[in-house]
Amino acid sequence: MPQQDPFDLAGAGGQAGGERVPHHLPYGVFTTPDEPGRRRIGVRHGDRVLDVHTAATALGSPHADILAHPTLNPLMAAGRPVWQAVRSSVTTWVGYPAIEPFLHPLDRVTLHLPFEVADYADFYSSEHHATNVGRIFRPQGAALPPNWKHLPIGYHGRAGTVVVSGTPVIRPAGQRRAADSPGPVFGPTQRLDIEAEVAFVVGTPSRPGERVPLADFPEHVFGVCLLNDWSARDIQSWEYLPLGPFLGKSFATSVSPWITPLDALDAARVAPPVRDPEPLPYLDDRAEPEPGGFDIRLAVTVNGHTVAEPPFSTMYWTAAQQLAHLTVNGATLRTGDLFASGTVSGPEPHQRGCLLELTWDGREPLDLPGGKRTYLEDGDEVTISGWAPGPEGTRIILGEVTGRVVAA
Amino acid sequence: MPQQDPFDLAGAGGQAGGERVPHHLPYGVFTTPDEPGRRRIGVRHGDRVLDVHTAATALGSPHADILAHPTLNPLMAAGRPVWQAVRSSVTTWVGYPAIEPFLHPLDRVTLHLPFEVADYADFYSSEHHATNVGRIFRPQGAALPPNWKHLPIGYHGRAGTVVVSGTPVIRPAGQRRAADSPGPVFGPTQRLDIEAEVAFVVGTPSRPGERVPLADFPEHVFGVCLLNDWSARDIQSWEYLPLGPFLGKSFATSVSPWITPLDALDAARVAPPVRDPEPLPYLDDRAEPEPGGFDIRLAVTVNGHTVAEPPFSTMYWTAAQQLAHLTVNGATLRTGDLFASGTVSGPEPHQRGCLLELTWDGREPLDLPGGKRTYLEDGDEVTISGWAPGPEGTRIILGEVTGRVVAA
Repeated sequence: MPQQDPFDLAGAGGQAGGERVPHHLPYGVFTTPDEPGRRRIGVRHGDRVLDVHTAATALGSPHADILAHPTLNPLMAAGRPVWQAVRSSVTTWVGYPAIEPFLHPLDRVTLHLPFEVADYADFYSSEHHATNVGRIFRPQGAALPPNWKHLPIGYHGRAGTVVVSGTPVIRPAGQRRAADSPGPVFGPTQRLDIEAEVAFVVGTPSRPGERVPLADFPEHVFGVCLLNDWSARDIQSWEYLPLGPFLGKSFATSVSPWITPLDALDAARVAPPVRDPEPLPYLDDRAEPEPGGFDIRLAVTVNGHTVAEPPFSTMYWTAAQQLAHLTVNGATLRTGDLFASGTVSGPEPHQRGCLLELTWDGREPLDLPGGKRTYLEDGDEVTISGWAPGPEGTRIILGEVTGRVVAA
Repeated sequence: MPQQDPFDLAGAGGQAGGERVPHHLPYGVFTTPDEPGRRRIGVRHGDRVLDVHTAATALGSPHADILAHPTLNPLMAAGRPVWQAVRSSVTTWVGYPAIEPFLHPLDRVTLHLPFEVADYADFYSSEHHATNVGRIFRPQGAALPPNWKHLPIGYHGRAGTVVVSGTPVIRPAGQRRAADSPGPVFGPTQRLDIEAEVAFVVGTPSRPGERVPLADFPEHVFGVCLLNDWSARDIQSWEYLPLGPFLGKSFATSVSPWITPLDALDAARVAPPVRDPEPLPYLDDRAEPEPGGFDIRLAVTVNGHTVAEPPFSTMYWTAAQQLAHLTVNGATLRTGDLFASGTVSGPEPHQRGCLLELTWDGREPLDLPGGKRTYLEDGDEVTISGWAPGPEGTRIILGEVTGRVVAA
């Protein structure tokens, strides 16, 4: 099996599932131009999309019914044994000439939000990001709040404004503190930012009062996508005390159209950083059989120019710890729950996952071919892409998430 | 039309819709013992529940289809003209002897969560509550944060753990700061609290980038319910900086089973307090044709003993202002969005809507017949009820919300 050239993405479509051997096989939801009202579950294979329900029906699969829906939710709700059975079947099918009629060229389909979002929670789990934010906003104080190394800090975001990659992002208006007055002024945000994140999609629900221990992470998490947590920094900084971000983030959150099955990232698992102090037992992952980190390398472009390459492997808290924390109070999980890592930032300046850090709150503008950038201008297009090591030297190229800023 | 004795609740069922003339007619979802799997939309009239889809079908109503669902969401999504037409029809029907077969005794039905919650947002709009909380936690600083009088502070809560009245509330576990250590300990919350709130349910959705001005509030809001925002104060105080409440509130939020149509509260509208400073134009309601406050009188009981009588009319920010703020950044509304007022507290000590305030964070225990209370103990049952003036001297008795604390 040949190793794929990581930079030879054009021949593989340059996007999710582009590897030539079927290790990835991400799920999405698509329509075709001749049936624009009929949303179907698709599995990406190279530069084509398999209409997986039609294929399953034709091939007599026992799982055809669960694939006959306009969203992934019924499949996600079916649980890990079904996920594994379907993935195993599709891995076989993509080698059959018989499925040729069920394959659609990627460039002829429209991709949609692939699942109905239940609750959306966002964490704050990069130590480098949290430290930078602390230094920017509280230069005299401790960079990290006292709870930061004891729990993965998180909050609930707005599920109803999670949108699929490609959806235009309308510049939000809101209140911000006027520079020369104790009160606010109103208008379009002047500090529109992005946050490059990795997000996890819950399939299997949980019962009231049930905790999801670290080891049960793969039983509940169906897959992974990339996420852009668009943020209006001026709105956020005026509103966020004492109850956290609200309108500064609720206008739009973009996700990639392809959900990478968790099993496709087996080869990408890496040990997380050493935690000091030791976390409480429900968060202590040192004895877990599988390492909790994932070696996903992100890239952020603004108008096609790479501005950051954040390494997800450097996250202090893992997704399994986030899920264990989210449920430790007995809160239930639902199929479609989405939880995101928080901005991914590494230790190096070019590894910072948001413009707040990259420009040090606008004090150090980025030099882009089209001109300097502090925060985003109308018309700017931001794309977050990512890849991870796959089995046998391959690469799993995650679905990218992109969005263009539109004037208020 | 005789004025109902406000304390003669027993004869009227003592609960929502108990008035003898059909001014209230709240909506719920019920099952009967012989068909426990068949959820149906019900309208409460006195101590009986009208199976409104079956009645609509029998009476040839053009709206029967929209009532043939296990939740209120399709009706809620249909928009205000349909809400008004259905309400008008039901008002007529309850006078017909022909509907007798479609009426079920209230004490023979089981009530369920009446709508699918989309996003749940919670505000912090009582000046008395926010001032008390500030005094308790920041005795040296300003009681209100600097943004408080400029915008209705809010945050997103967990929609998936909104439960119907009567659902047991399992005492949550979590991290809290140890008294004698900088780090946390883990265990069941020792400071389990309630928050008495009034909540609003969105019917008509909005488009991306669309703002909902104050005047459009009745076009989008289907109805009103009571809400108990259960809170673990020790978990909350350790986790909430800098991103707000998370596990301290995400374990359970209880709502009443009856949704009062917004139109049923027309006679309860009252002028809100004077705002100083003047809010920004999108929040300035002085020129609105209808006053934005609602004269809803709440009562909170613990194990049957009244501990507080919070007046909703004293809220600084109205629900219309909350909705205008929530959407001013262009965030969309979905059918089923739920937003709550925040703890309702009045100026007097017995008008405070949570134990944090009522006991001044445990320093001044309440003297209850069963013993002193600071925070809730296992087995405690909390009920929030409320009523508002109806037309012609009647009372609109809102559906109560109750819950019993169960050991972790």
